[in-house]
Amino acid sequence: MPDTDTDTPDRTGLPGATAYEPTERTVPTRARERASYDRETVHGILDAAYLCHLGFVRDGAPVVLPTLFGRIGDRLYVHGSTGSRPLRTAGATDPGLAVCLTVTHVDGLVLARSAFHHSINYRSVVVHGTARAVTDPQERRVALDAIVDQVVAGRSADSRPADAKELAATAVIRLDLDEVSAKIRTGGPNDDPEDLALPHWAGVVPVARTYGAPLPSEDLDPAVPVPEYLTALRDGAAPAAP
Amino acid sequence: MPDTDTDTPDRTGLPGATAYEPTERTVPTRARERASYDRETVHGILDAAYLCHLGFVRDGAPVVLPTLFGRIGDRLYVHGSTGSRPLRTAGATDPGLAVCLTVTHVDGLVLARSAFHHSINYRSVVVHGTARAVTDPQERRVALDAIVDQVVAGRSADSRPADAKELAATAVIRLDLDEVSAKIRTGGPNDDPEDLALPHWAGVVPVARTYGAPLPSEDLDPAVPVPEYLTALRDGAAPAAP
Repeated sequence: MPDTDTDTPDRTGLPGATAYEPTERTVPTRARERASYDRETVHGILDAAYLCHLGFVRDGAPVVLPTLFGRIGDRLYVHGSTGSRPLRTAGATDPGLAVCLTVTHVDGLVLARSAFHHSINYRSVVVHGTARAVTDPQERRVALDAIVDQVVAGRSADSRPADAKELAATAVIRLDLDEVSAKIRTGGPNDDPEDLALPHWAGVVPVARTYGAPLPSEDLDPAVPVPEYLTALRDGAAPAAP
Repeated sequence: MPDTDTDTPDRTGLPGATAYEPTERTVPTRARERASYDRETVHGILDAAYLCHLGFVRDGAPVVLPTLFGRIGDRLYVHGSTGSRPLRTAGATDPGLAVCLTVTHVDGLVLARSAFHHSINYRSVVVHGTARAVTDPQERRVALDAIVDQVVAGRSADSRPADAKELAATAVIRLDLDEVSAKIRTGGPNDDPEDLALPHWAGVVPVARTYGAPLPSEDLDPAVPVPEYLTALRDGAAPAAP
C-alpha cells in the first residue's frame, strides 16, 4: 500500500511447523516487516473472509475474478459452473492452472498530515500455486460444504445437500496452502516530524463489515424462525477496530 | 459466483456513447444477464470503492495484489513505491504491463434452501488493459490527489501535497477504462420449486461497509477538529441493502 512507514511490529514468523516457508515471491520487495508466514495468522485472515480474488493467465493476459472460497486445513477450494473459464481450464490442463488467490480485509483509513503518508490498515493473504480439479466425489462434497460454511458457519448442515445433477454441474478446484504469506498494517499515520504541527486532522477512521437483520424470502413460511447461526453472525460482526 | 439463477433484470447496456463496447473477454460465459457495460454503472461501482485487486503476470504466473486506486474520467490510476514489482515492470517495459483490475462490493449473503443455490449479492467491475507509467509531472500530481480523494472525498485539499522527494519515490501507473464490464447480482435466493417447502430459512443477510468514529493520532493537537468530510463519511455509509 502507499506509505513507507516501517514502525509496524515485526510479525514475521520463522519457517517451521507453525509457519509457511517464505519463497522469492512471497517475500515483499518493501515493507517486509508487515509480512507474516505464521500459519495461524494466515488461517485467521482467510477464515474471516469468504470472498477472494482469483487470478489466472488466459491467452497470456491476467484475469482477476471475485469468487467464494472455503478452507479445510491447508487446502483452499473454489467452485463454480463447469462452464466457467478458470474451472474449465484447471480441469482440462495438466498439471493444473497457475493461480494467485488473494484475500483482503480493510480495517481502517489512515489519514496523515501529508498526502504521501496516507494509507490503509488492512490484513491480506496472497496464495501462489497450482489449482487442480477435484474429481473425488467425497472430496467434492466436503469442499462444497466448506464453501457454504465459510460464508455462514453451520449453514451447510441446515440446507438441502447438492444432488447428483447439481454436483455434475459444479466444478471444484483445490489450491494447497504452501506458498503463502500474510501482510498486515495496523496503527496510526506515520507523519514526518516536521509535519506534526500542520493544521490537518490526523488519525484513523475504523472500517468494518457489518451484517443487517436477515430479510426472509417472500415465499418463506413465516413459521420458519431465523436460525441462531444468523443471529450470531450479526452479533458477532467484528467491531470497528483501528 | 456460485448459483445459476437467471431472473436478475437485464442491465446490459448497448454499445454507444453511454456504454463501453463489450469484447470477447468482457462477455461472461455464463449469467450474462448480470453483466453491464453502462458507463454510469461502471463508474458508480468504482467510485464506491478505493481498494482494487490488481492482477499482472510475472515470470509467466499470475500475481494479484490489493492496492488503492483513483478514477478521473475514463482513467484509473494506481500508485506505489518505485521499487514495487508491478509499477517497476509497467515503467520498464514497452508497451506497458498487461493488467486486470477488479473491484468488488459484497452487498448480501443469499441463503437458499438448497446448498447449490447459495450465493452472494455483489457489484463488481473488471477492467482489462495495459498499464503505463505516468511520467508527466502534472498528471502525476493530479493522479495522486485522485487516489487520496478516492479514499476520502475532499481530503487531498486538506493535507500537505507531496514534495519533490516524495514524488520521486512514488510511481504512478495509468489504466484506461476501455475494455471493462460490471457484474451485479441482486435479490433473493432462487430455489427450485420443489425445495420451497423445505424447513430451512431462506433469504438475504445484508452486508455493508461501515465507518467508526475517527480516532485521532496521539500526537494530534486536540484543538484540531474532526473535519466535516469525515463526519459525512460516517453518516453517509451506505445502509445495508439486500
